[in-house]
Amino acid sequence: MSTPIRFYFDFSSPYSYIANEWLDALAAQHGRAVERHAILLGVTFQAAELKSPVSYPIKREYSVRDFARSARFHGLDYKLPDPFPIPTQNAARVFWWLKDSRGEAAAAAWANAGLRAVFQRGLPLNDAATLKAVAAEAGIDPAEAESVWNDPVWKDRLKRANEAAIAAGVFGAPFFIVDGEPFWGNDRRPQIERWVASGAF
Amino acid sequence: MSTPIRFYFDFSSPYSYIANEWLDALAAQHGRAVERHAILLGVTFQAAELKSPVSYPIKREYSVRDFARSARFHGLDYKLPDPFPIPTQNAARVFWWLKDSRGEAAAAAWANAGLRAVFQRGLPLNDAATLKAVAAEAGIDPAEAESVWNDPVWKDRLKRANEAAIAAGVFGAPFFIVDGEPFWGNDRRPQIERWVASGAF
Repeated sequence: MSTPIRFYFDFSSPYSYIANEWLDALAAQHGRAVERHAILLGVTFQAAELKSPVSYPIKREYSVRDFARSARFHGLDYKLPDPFPIPTQNAARVFWWLKDSRGEAAAAAWANAGLRAVFQRGLPLNDAATLKAVAAEAGIDPAEAESVWNDPVWKDRLKRANEAAIAAGVFGAPFFIVDGEPFWGNDRRPQIERWVASGAF
Repeated sequence: MSTPIRFYFDFSSPYSYIANEWLDALAAQHGRAVERHAILLGVTFQAAELKSPVSYPIKREYSVRDFARSARFHGLDYKLPDPFPIPTQNAARVFWWLKDSRGEAAAAAWANAGLRAVFQRGLPLNDAATLKAVAAEAGIDPAEAESVWNDPVWKDRLKRANEAAIAAGVFGAPFFIVDGEPFWGNDRRPQIERWVASGAF
């Protein structure tokens, strides 16, 4: 019954960055593995007929403030990249290539490196040169990373990952599935914690 | 510096019901008063070009599940009324009449009575007979309540309350303003608690 916690994230999602920082420790404390899924928020928003919170002027102002405050609340460094949001399909294709060819730990290390590059250093991960530099820092051959994100095989892999996420009911990020139970948002941490500590409530 | 916590709610908002249940104790523990504002979520959504989460089919299914789970998480009885959401302008007009003519405590008691009628008993508060019965239970003369919600003076009072909320940046409910800092959602409770306990972070 101790299934992995499924964690859906987008490299351009501030709340995904925050959740990614606490998730491994929480899971380990309760004997759970984490199964990461890089997705494109834009695709899931479109499927659910939703839009990004920052696409609404009044909500954007609040959201930008809440991103930073939520990072402080969790004791994390934080910087909002400019421009924001950015397209993240190349970083996500590299994620799936690592996951399928080198396993979950390599993919998790890339998730950490990419999310921190965006939200601790404000780097434009959509820029090819920036993405290659971040890959190199993470011990990934930058030329190989670039050939991966241009490869139809990995483009298709990401497309299927998005479709699978939508089929699983994912409509935003971060999104968690624990024993089949869906939790949406970094702010569902207390409920997730109770669920894995004490079972369904 | 110990200003009241401003709390914006809609009588048809499940997360407002939940927050309304824990807010007074949290505020009292930290020497704060609570200043309640009944608003119409539909009006603030429209001003911010937003829609209710339950107007999106995929998000509705998750939201309905999360409403109930969040109530259980907080140890509260909960029932989703059918139909949902319901128009709540009449209950809100009675709220402003009580607040202006009898004070904050009388308005808070009505907020409690109305939110519990909807979300503990699933009552259709938009129905005139139901609303009058709930008013009577709460010690309010039902005929007086009905004349209030049909009175242009209280219609206008609610309209101005909505406009003031929008001007203060409110785009959803529950919405809290603490020392000028905006917090949106029942799930911001931990951040609000830290803010009132330890100051700005």
